[in-house]
Amino acid sequence: MLIVMQSGCSEDNISNVIKFIKQKGFDAHVSKGEEHTVIGAVGSKIIDKRDIELLNGVKEVIRISSPYKLVSRVFKPDDTIVEVNGVKFGGGNIGMIAGPCSVESFEQVDACAQKLASYGVKILRGGAFKPRTSPYSFQGLGEEGLKILRKAADKYNMAVTSEVMEINQIPLFLKYVDIIQVGARNMQNFNLLKNLGEIRKPILLKRGLSATIEELLMSAEYIMSGGNRQVILCERGIRTFEHMTRNTLDLSAIPVVQKISHLPIIVDPSHSTGLRDKVAPMSKAAVAAGADGLIIEVHNSPETALCDGAQSLYPEQFNQLFTELKALANVINKHF
Amino acid sequence: MLIVMQSGCSEDNISNVIKFIKQKGFDAHVSKGEEHTVIGAVGSKIIDKRDIELLNGVKEVIRISSPYKLVSRVFKPDDTIVEVNGVKFGGGNIGMIAGPCSVESFEQVDACAQKLASYGVKILRGGAFKPRTSPYSFQGLGEEGLKILRKAADKYNMAVTSEVMEINQIPLFLKYVDIIQVGARNMQNFNLLKNLGEIRKPILLKRGLSATIEELLMSAEYIMSGGNRQVILCERGIRTFEHMTRNTLDLSAIPVVQKISHLPIIVDPSHSTGLRDKVAPMSKAAVAAGADGLIIEVHNSPETALCDGAQSLYPEQFNQLFTELKALANVINKHF
Amino acid sequence: MLIVMQSGCSEDNISNVIKFIKQKGFDAHVSKGEEHTVIGAVGSKIIDKRDIELLNGVKEVIRISSPYKLVSRVFKPDDTIVEVNGVKFGGGNIGMIAGPCSVESFEQVDACAQKLASYGVKILRGGAFKPRTSPYSFQGLGEEGLKILRKAADKYNMAVTSEVMEINQIPLFLKYVDIIQVGARNMQNFNLLKNLGEIRKPILLKRGLSATIEELLMSAEYIMSGGNRQVILCERGIRTFEHMTRNTLDLSAIPVVQKISHLPIIVDPSHSTGLRDKVAPMSKAAVAAGADGLIIEVHNSPETALCDGAQSLYPEQFNQLFTELKALANVINKHF
Amino acid sequence: MLIVMQSGCSEDNISNVIKFIKQKGFDAHVSKGEEHTVIGAVGSKIIDKRDIELLNGVKEVIRISSPYKLVSRVFKPDDTIVEVNGVKFGGGNIGMIAGPCSVESFEQVDACAQKLASYGVKILRGGAFKPRTSPYSFQGLGEEGLKILRKAADKYNMAVTSEVMEINQIPLFLKYVDIIQVGARNMQNFNLLKNLGEIRKPILLKRGLSATIEELLMSAEYIMSGGNRQVILCERGIRTFEHMTRNTLDLSAIPVVQKISHLPIIVDPSHSTGLRDKVAPMSKAAVAAGADGLIIEVHNSPETALCDGAQSLYPEQFNQLFTELKALANVINKHF
Repeated sequence: MLIVMQSGCSEDNISNVIKFIKQKGFDAHVSKGEEHTVIGAVGSKIIDKRDIELLNGVKEVIRISSPYKLVSRVFKPDDTIVEVNGVKFGGGNIGMIAGPCSVESFEQVDACAQKLASYGVKILRGGAFKPRTSPYSFQGLGEEGLKILRKAADKYNMAVTSEVMEINQIPLFLKYVDIIQVGARNMQNFNLLKNLGEIRKPILLKRGLSATIEELLMSAEYIMSGGNRQVILCERGIRTFEHMTRNTLDLSAIPVVQKISHLPIIVDPSHSTGLRDKVAPMSKAAVAAGADGLIIEVHNSPETALCDGAQSLYPEQFNQLFTELKALANVINKHF
Repeated sequence: MLIVMQSGCSEDNISNVIKFIKQKGFDAHVSKGEEHTVIGAVGSKIIDKRDIELLNGVKEVIRISSPYKLVSRVFKPDDTIVEVNGVKFGGGNIGMIAGPCSVESFEQVDACAQKLASYGVKILRGGAFKPRTSPYSFQGLGEEGLKILRKAADKYNMAVTSEVMEINQIPLFLKYVDIIQVGARNMQNFNLLKNLGEIRKPILLKRGLSATIEELLMSAEYIMSGGNRQVILCERGIRTFEHMTRNTLDLSAIPVVQKISHLPIIVDPSHSTGLRDKVAPMSKAAVAAGADGLIIEVHNSPETALCDGAQSLYPEQFNQLFTELKALANVINKHF
Repeated sequence: MLIVMQSGCSEDNISNVIKFIKQKGFDAHVSKGEEHTVIGAVGSKIIDKRDIELLNGVKEVIRISSPYKLVSRVFKPDDTIVEVNGVKFGGGNIGMIAGPCSVESFEQVDACAQKLASYGVKILRGGAFKPRTSPYSFQGLGEEGLKILRKAADKYNMAVTSEVMEINQIPLFLKYVDIIQVGARNMQNFNLLKNLGEIRKPILLKRGLSATIEELLMSAEYIMSGGNRQVILCERGIRTFEHMTRNTLDLSAIPVVQKISHLPIIVDPSHSTGLRDKVAPMSKAAVAAGADGLIIEVHNSPETALCDGAQSLYPEQFNQLFTELKALANVINKHF
Repeated sequence: MLIVMQSGCSEDNISNVIKFIKQKGFDAHVSKGEEHTVIGAVGSKIIDKRDIELLNGVKEVIRISSPYKLVSRVFKPDDTIVEVNGVKFGGGNIGMIAGPCSVESFEQVDACAQKLASYGVKILRGGAFKPRTSPYSFQGLGEEGLKILRKAADKYNMAVTSEVMEINQIPLFLKYVDIIQVGARNMQNFNLLKNLGEIRKPILLKRGLSATIEELLMSAEYIMSGGNRQVILCERGIRTFEHMTRNTLDLSAIPVVQKISHLPIIVDPSHSTGLRDKVAPMSKAAVAAGADGLIIEVHNSPETALCDGAQSLYPEQFNQLFTELKALANVINKHF
């Protein structure tokens, strides 16, 4: 931590800051510049930098060590590869997840799974517990939904991912689900994250609507600090003033995350754009930008879907897109 | 719901849309304009408007009925007044809540409570379960913290508010706490909201960092739809590109909410600005804008606080501010 | 325009609204729904919808005709192709523009141009008038810079693009420059836009840092309404709360614009990310998303550049990227 | 400037950085910490910090001297008071500016001015050149508008403020106008700012829709660096995801600016909220937060206004608000 003193501050101000940080358990290294004196606070304690900024004569306090440890490339230089049902995310591999937004019935999920399996998809998505803005909207089938997902997936040798909404649901997810999703609205539900750190199943952690990349990594740190090392990050759009798309997909997050963290990062083009005809271009863009995977909504009959049909691809559309994505991946020396 | 057809769309397009919305349970009223045909879909069903927007010939679908019911002034024209320990929020009354960010020890809370009670504050705040971005930061004292709060509050005839973080903690809060806070990061933790709808204690619902005012009201709708009518809304800053304050306090939310909802709305100037010297001006601004209350962080010794000391007022600062706020309230015919 | 009346409004309210819009030159079509009466205002006059929203009994006013005309695909269904020096933007063609951020000397520009020409680049970029946040930063070489650009470009048979900052500079640009850039900070400098509408050279219009896509199109409308039909739009990142990149590149703008407008849209990956190692992934993503072109900063010696060297590619890096981009374009049936 | 090296970087990395900054004209002070080596670059040259961040072994570069000089309180500790027609902005004084959005006719401006003068307003606002998003909207009366403003103002002993849109209009403004406004969309029209630095009339500089407070101050620096010291800053709302108000009024900017700059800062509650019934609460909030002035739209007949009638107060509404604002100012020891 570096403490920059105001130009013209008194010697008393400086010695007072030094006394303060020593009390907090830091060593102090003073360096006098032409305009500003800078005090380096050396140590590994955690302190709110604003506490120092309020001391007299202090101009600014700058944190120089990163707040995350286990998620950092400094801690683990090589890519983490998460593998589920033979599908790999990370390390040059692109994983594909597809399926309907919500589980509506066995027939629906079965129809989707059959098609997707025939296209080579090995991980099926589907919501059983649905986070809905309105209490009057369809809230999902609950445990029954998870059972349906599992049954359909087993029939076609697929793995399953679904979103968990609270701690009490974790035992159910351990029973039925292979990758546990944490939705954007729960990215900073810290108690949930802690509990997911204690299990040993892969976690798919979605970025919150207004979360910085640093906060996304800190939420992954919560999971990893519990001992669960299989975390897949997911960019799904952030909230901005632009309203022609539901959210603004921040694809720059891919190279940014890949530089500072070893964890794989995938992209959800369905929720970010919110409209079917934007899913294909943004999926291609994600692969070209280096994404480690995609999670795409596909519905056997989007026009009758109970939830988000408008952003779901028809199975045939998905199949064509998947073929194009493989060709694009090939050009940049990656593969599904 | 109004469905605006593209100029030059075919009669087939129009009849297809009519057929579609009738299947979904709506009546259709067609109105042909100079440039656009508009179809009114009349009925109370819930439908994702994007499903219609994808039909051929449709230009735009416009929802005209509000998504919220119980929180709306149409439903209940007069102000809801939430009263706790003789303090009223709403209906021309401004309620004051003050106390430390976190509960650290009985001595600390007792020292704060004693001072605040002597200034006329009747509701004490304090965090026992702390949502922290880093898993390595102080996470709060838990149940022990709630007990300390209760004990100190009882000693000075104060009520208590504290933040709940998950469903499993609700029984503890029912035992120790008078107003249950839902933090910004849990504003869309829908399962938690549903469970809080089933109890009969006032809920202090904070706006999420990237939540629209409409979403804040929908989250209140979750609580109210369970039967709990005592909801206090709280503006605490939204996330923008501006970085000289921690968040951007959106005081316009006060008159906006007061026009469309009967629920009281209070302001948290401490978390939104993040710095002590901005708390007083923004508290005054909140009162002048018509806020129904304030929740302010005060610490007996901010420089040794375990959390957010930098934004906590000294007791004497608070006392002076409270005096000024009462004078301001008087000018606009409101009172603490 | 649709005027939605409040449920329970009086007949007087309705007839008052009708009278008001008739005075303003509109016809009125009334349609009574179960909950709301809707009044269609038919006509082509321009009116601020808030004027109607303030009338008694009005719930909401909804504009249904688009504010833009000449830029719209309804007006011109087929892609506009802008061609400069044999390079096409739009209609399946991807145009490439490259060069240094600022013109520093003839030697520098000549070195860049020689390299770029050898890689097949036919349009050279370079800033002569620089918009800088600080009055104490390098402000560009001015007319001398334009002369240098022209001379170097002519030597290698290249065309030239550079940024204009005010109306008085237009004659200079007509003399030396082939595509006139309007920078992000001038996207709503309406007087400048009007004057550029009266000339007959292609305009490269950059999206403002907080401009919506609709506003970008309206600014293009300003240029086109003057008679200049050769407008190239440019996505260059918007301002959000994320700070790990300089701006957030909004690649979804590509398919959004291409659906509603016939104008070509290109991407600037250099200014949006602000860092060299993010330029390649975002350039690939832009092409995969369907961009009609790219404008990339390349400097013969980035470490000594007077401006934005940190985001400039080395010539060899650019060459390798250009090769990869051509391969990607091929996969999606487009070509440079 | 502080250069933080990566933990574990080589001695070569360090000496290379030192060599680089010395070439750029800085002195280097090295300080070795437990985890990181920090190099202080001492000197007053301007350098793009990203150029250093790209050197091997560098973790982060931190600028510690402020980019603004003349606008800073360090440069001038006491408040700048701008005085026009006996009205003072700054130093405990609150200045009031009021008038219609646009000049429509002499009768209209005369009617407004007569009323406002009778309420004690001494500075009249009115737009003659209007920045409009659409080329098809009313663009203002131009010079004729300025003449009308001047004539009406002279009749009632008022001063005049109006918005300039380009350099070529400055001579006109020098002739007719007392305070020259720079609109939000021109806040970074740097050539215009430079030219306004060379004149000697007060400038009212509005914050851009996505401008940070730092950028607002840098734009003021442009004006002051030309020698014009009379700059009034104006907060008028920033663009966020919230859409219930036109923009989000950032009142925290008031105490933030007042701490770091000596320049007065006023608030425009009309453009930021965009609706008449929000103007009064936000005006009161601005005064309570410590604003040095207000600029409010008032129209003698808002329902027939050619521009922004929806956000204009009726004269009587304004009069009542002005009375309340004076009472509020009194409570916080400031005065109009």
